[in-house]
Amino acid sequence: MDVMNPDYMDAVRETFRRAHFTEEVGVRLVDAGPGWCETELIIDERHQQQNGCVHAGVQATMADHTAGAAGFTVIGADEWLLSSEFKINLLRPAQGERLRCRGQVLKPGRRLVISEAEVYAVRDGMEKLVSKLGVTLAVLKVTGRESAS
Amino acid sequence: MDVMNPDYMDAVRETFRRAHFTEEVGVRLVDAGPGWCETELIIDERHQQQNGCVHAGVQATMADHTAGAAGFTVIGADEWLLSSEFKINLLRPAQGERLRCRGQVLKPGRRLVISEAEVYAVRDGMEKLVSKLGVTLAVLKVTGRESAS
Amino acid sequence: MDVMNPDYMDAVRETFRRAHFTEEVGVRLVDAGPGWCETELIIDERHQQQNGCVHAGVQATMADHTAGAAGFTVIGADEWLLSSEFKINLLRPAQGERLRCRGQVLKPGRRLVISEAEVYAVRDGMEKLVSKLGVTLAVLKVTGRESAS
Amino acid sequence: MDVMNPDYMDAVRETFRRAHFTEEVGVRLVDAGPGWCETELIIDERHQQQNGCVHAGVQATMADHTAGAAGFTVIGADEWLLSSEFKINLLRPAQGERLRCRGQVLKPGRRLVISEAEVYAVRDGMEKLVSKLGVTLAVLKVTGRESAS
Repeated sequence: MDVMNPDYMDAVRETFRRAHFTEEVGVRLVDAGPGWCETELIIDERHQQQNGCVHAGVQATMADHTAGAAGFTVIGADEWLLSSEFKINLLRPAQGERLRCRGQVLKPGRRLVISEAEVYAVRDGMEKLVSKLGVTLAVLKVTGRESAS
Repeated sequence: MDVMNPDYMDAVRETFRRAHFTEEVGVRLVDAGPGWCETELIIDERHQQQNGCVHAGVQATMADHTAGAAGFTVIGADEWLLSSEFKINLLRPAQGERLRCRGQVLKPGRRLVISEAEVYAVRDGMEKLVSKLGVTLAVLKVTGRESAS
Repeated sequence: MDVMNPDYMDAVRETFRRAHFTEEVGVRLVDAGPGWCETELIIDERHQQQNGCVHAGVQATMADHTAGAAGFTVIGADEWLLSSEFKINLLRPAQGERLRCRGQVLKPGRRLVISEAEVYAVRDGMEKLVSKLGVTLAVLKVTGRESAS
Repeated sequence: MDVMNPDYMDAVRETFRRAHFTEEVGVRLVDAGPGWCETELIIDERHQQQNGCVHAGVQATMADHTAGAAGFTVIGADEWLLSSEFKINLLRPAQGERLRCRGQVLKPGRRLVISEAEVYAVRDGMEKLVSKLGVTLAVLKVTGRESAS
């Protein structure tokens, strides 16, 4: 995938440094490259919902942020991205020691970037796909910092 | 909307008591009735993303849980609900002192319950619609505690 | 809702005149006003799927076009709209003599317009909500005629 | 992907024979196997919208039906599927001589099957991904023929 900003890795790191909530939840950047980003989260009791599985809100936070960070690798240095909408499918109960997430740009664009993210639960060294998200990201100019619409 | 479980308020309260992550995020039950539920969240620095607005993950967590809790008011006493998928539209920057959310059942059912939730940001006493979510909830038997599919 | 183009009704009619497929399917404009549009379709055997109900594709075509037409009432005279993504919930079997659809703008914007549409099946004079759609529409300049991204 | 009905190909063919609207639109079955289905459509003037591209409704009809048909390869002989909701991303203008669609099951299940479909526009022998759909299919017993919820 084409790269417009050679320093995209700084932009990706910046999205993690400046997102208080993502840090609070415990989403950690693993790596990123042209059109993709990978993150990780150590599962803790606070992430769980009533049935002992990781809450949909944790998975959505992780997948949305990772898919968005993948988008930051294909935009210009003077641009940033804001989620306009996303859909997430919760496919299986998310149980294990940690979550791994891979975000991937499906379609770059001047106005909109469409990205996807898959979340895997890792248990006893085995990985299972537990959720999949698709997001529409609005491309904004850095000076603006306006809303997505 | 028809009520099958006269003690639905206990079931709603239970979904908040047992969801560690929702409590961690700070989503608080305000009230509920047949087919609806209302919640509240005091906005804190930890909820924010890079541009000073409430992170999409916070809004998704709040809206998904509130829409689901609305669903708990229309199912049987031996049933519970699990989100199968949701879509959220982030309409405006979420800024202010607190978020208010109202969940509403769009379509009850024996197998699936479809609910919606609207999130409002309250700033200086003024409310603005900031996001809207639609969720597909799978109806499960309490004994099962299986996945949504 | 604010109107930027006083001749918005011409723009709405134009979207129906120029959409061969919508005409082929039989979606007919009923009326429109600031932020909304209503359409109608007489149900025929060709609209049906295997179980005797109106196919999801017919409902999606009608709801997407009607939600988009509602959006045309709130944009400028030099602008047009293109669907970037939509989600539709098929709530009940769509059976009867005709479908009625109402599209409504949820959030106007300079770059994106978010609209919804509800489809009702009319049977023996009784109306039932059968599906609900939400769409992200990209705002484009008339000269461009480019894609949504 | 596991096959429960060895005669799944009959079930897939049946979904095309009995869907008047899909036939009307011109969606043609190409092939299917465990967990997948491929279809084709020759682009005609009647499929187009105002800008000369294939209408979103045509793409949604094709992708929903193909993703559903993929689901029919992984269910029992006494079961059938009904779309409960789908989301489609319209990524690029759909122009060319024909559309090709591949549906793929993401997650089989006893109650819900989650499928995806990608639509490609073929122009001068070159293929481009023009849209991507994700659908939640409710698994129903053949005797029932009830609604998805």
